[in-house]
Amino acid sequence: MPTIDAERLTDFAQAIFEGAGISREESRIVAEHLVLSNLYGVDSHGVIRISEYLQLIDEGRMKPGARPEIVKETKATANVDAHFGFGQVAGKMSMELAIKKAREYGTGTVTVFNSSHSGRIGAYPVLAAQQNMIGLFFVKGNGGDVSPWGGRKALLGTSPLSFAIPTGGGEPILADFATSISSEGKIRVMQSKGMRIPLGWILDAAGRPTQDPDELYSKGGTIVPFGAHKGYAMNLLLEALGGALSGGGISDELASSNAIFAQAIDIEFFTPIAEFKAKIDRLVERLRSSPPGEGFDEVLVPGDPEYREMKKRKANGISINDRIWNGIIEVARKYHITPPAI
Amino acid sequence: MPTIDAERLTDFAQAIFEGAGISREESRIVAEHLVLSNLYGVDSHGVIRISEYLQLIDEGRMKPGARPEIVKETKATANVDAHFGFGQVAGKMSMELAIKKAREYGTGTVTVFNSSHSGRIGAYPVLAAQQNMIGLFFVKGNGGDVSPWGGRKALLGTSPLSFAIPTGGGEPILADFATSISSEGKIRVMQSKGMRIPLGWILDAAGRPTQDPDELYSKGGTIVPFGAHKGYAMNLLLEALGGALSGGGISDELASSNAIFAQAIDIEFFTPIAEFKAKIDRLVERLRSSPPGEGFDEVLVPGDPEYREMKKRKANGISINDRIWNGIIEVARKYHITPPAI
Repeated sequence: MPTIDAERLTDFAQAIFEGAGISREESRIVAEHLVLSNLYGVDSHGVIRISEYLQLIDEGRMKPGARPEIVKETKATANVDAHFGFGQVAGKMSMELAIKKAREYGTGTVTVFNSSHSGRIGAYPVLAAQQNMIGLFFVKGNGGDVSPWGGRKALLGTSPLSFAIPTGGGEPILADFATSISSEGKIRVMQSKGMRIPLGWILDAAGRPTQDPDELYSKGGTIVPFGAHKGYAMNLLLEALGGALSGGGISDELASSNAIFAQAIDIEFFTPIAEFKAKIDRLVERLRSSPPGEGFDEVLVPGDPEYREMKKRKANGISINDRIWNGIIEVARKYHITPPAI
Repeated sequence: MPTIDAERLTDFAQAIFEGAGISREESRIVAEHLVLSNLYGVDSHGVIRISEYLQLIDEGRMKPGARPEIVKETKATANVDAHFGFGQVAGKMSMELAIKKAREYGTGTVTVFNSSHSGRIGAYPVLAAQQNMIGLFFVKGNGGDVSPWGGRKALLGTSPLSFAIPTGGGEPILADFATSISSEGKIRVMQSKGMRIPLGWILDAAGRPTQDPDELYSKGGTIVPFGAHKGYAMNLLLEALGGALSGGGISDELASSNAIFAQAIDIEFFTPIAEFKAKIDRLVERLRSSPPGEGFDEVLVPGDPEYREMKKRKANGISINDRIWNGIIEVARKYHITPPAI
């Protein structure tokens, strides 16, 4: 299992994208985004995606170079057509536009349709938190995996949501999770390892709980929403805010893989930022210093696992499993890019 | 168990509040709100609250007649001090203000601190949905019942969230739920019936799962968030948007029982309302007509159970259990209000 530092991995990923004919600027944005996901420990959204993205580009389903276009705009709102460009470009653009509007109107709200895969969506609301704003980034994912609560037909996406809340002392509180009980990627990994999955995650085609991941992939099974009827409701909120409000589409009707609802809320418009941060710091401190329940070692705050992993990987490098690394090498060879020595 | 129609129950509740010296206008608002909760089947937030509210008023913790005051306002935002008045008054006022701002700026966002109990919060986002807007209404409830995920100390409130999404054909999609796995009220009802509660809802003081509701009320137990770490994250979002952004306070530091984040999003600013509604109607139709999973009879959309109950209760009247009815009669007697014949 090769281990490589983030900087060299980023340069390598960038070189591959450039080799495939993608502009230097876009190659850099996407390479940095993917490697940052690896740094955070979110390997499912890291460099493993290089070959997938290049394949989508080959098939004409992703269009590098497409510039997100504002198709409707008012003072505090905008709707954007991403024209099937990199989701990383549309994600960043939409959150930056929301931030700009929030600075003037207190909130900025931007929807996006025709966006490709957004990558690790936690990357975007953090941009707002860095500007003393609360950032919300909700994605309607194209349907096909998730059944409504009480149902057995895959009508919904794993639609993830993310938000970031600025703190005074350290990193923002950062939540980033699928509204399904598990991401599809996590179940795929368990399947590849021959593992059974926890009861209550997926249903077979008859709507019965099963621990066999094959039921999901070849036999018409579905993933259930997180948190029963409440997570199902959250998933529908993302259908509305992402899919319907942007015009992108609901259920499996998206023309692209993602539709986005991005919002920035400038804290100072409501309450002094120093007081806000003091409250959040006190909350975080109370949570972290509170005693754990049975089966836990400590109480964490959303973002803690990722920040810890980043510290470790920044110091020790990013380990990539052989199968994934060999896949990347193979793609690199296609474009005559020399892999870094490891 | 007496059964009474909504109109007469409303008049009765109003008469009691007026008898207690509350203005006719406020008495009507609160009485209508409580009875509407009963109509929707949400009896925990119905007329059962009359005596609780009157007691809080006696103790000086709720202050009828207090008018919500805008303490900070910009074009698309406002922060409101509710001065410990009825939560029903502050809830309605904040959502109406958000709607007014949204009509001009696409979104309107209003926070409220020093609010008393908001009642059934689903009442407020529906006001936005009736104006072709998406309504969000998030409440930070004063802490003391809910432990963070992985912890065993009650640091958080049961903080509920609600949203309403307009449809073309029928009632709005309406979600309204606590970010704890159960409301405290539901557990209290099970305790009063001598029932054990489902495993995974509460922890004892040592952080171990228990089915004994007494562990929650007299032995230092806690309720867990819904949906594990994901629902915990949602609870923290409400701490930030409700408690910290309004200035009201985090964890158990609220001076009142509720702090509010209300937002209205005017759909037409993003996409034509007719297209939006057509998409949502198609989504709802696909969900409702999809096959049920094991243990379910049908697939519902958030709001369906409440709308069905309302139809029934509008036709057949509202049944109120004897203990609650007798409690109301007793309060009425105190203010020399004659109960309706039933």
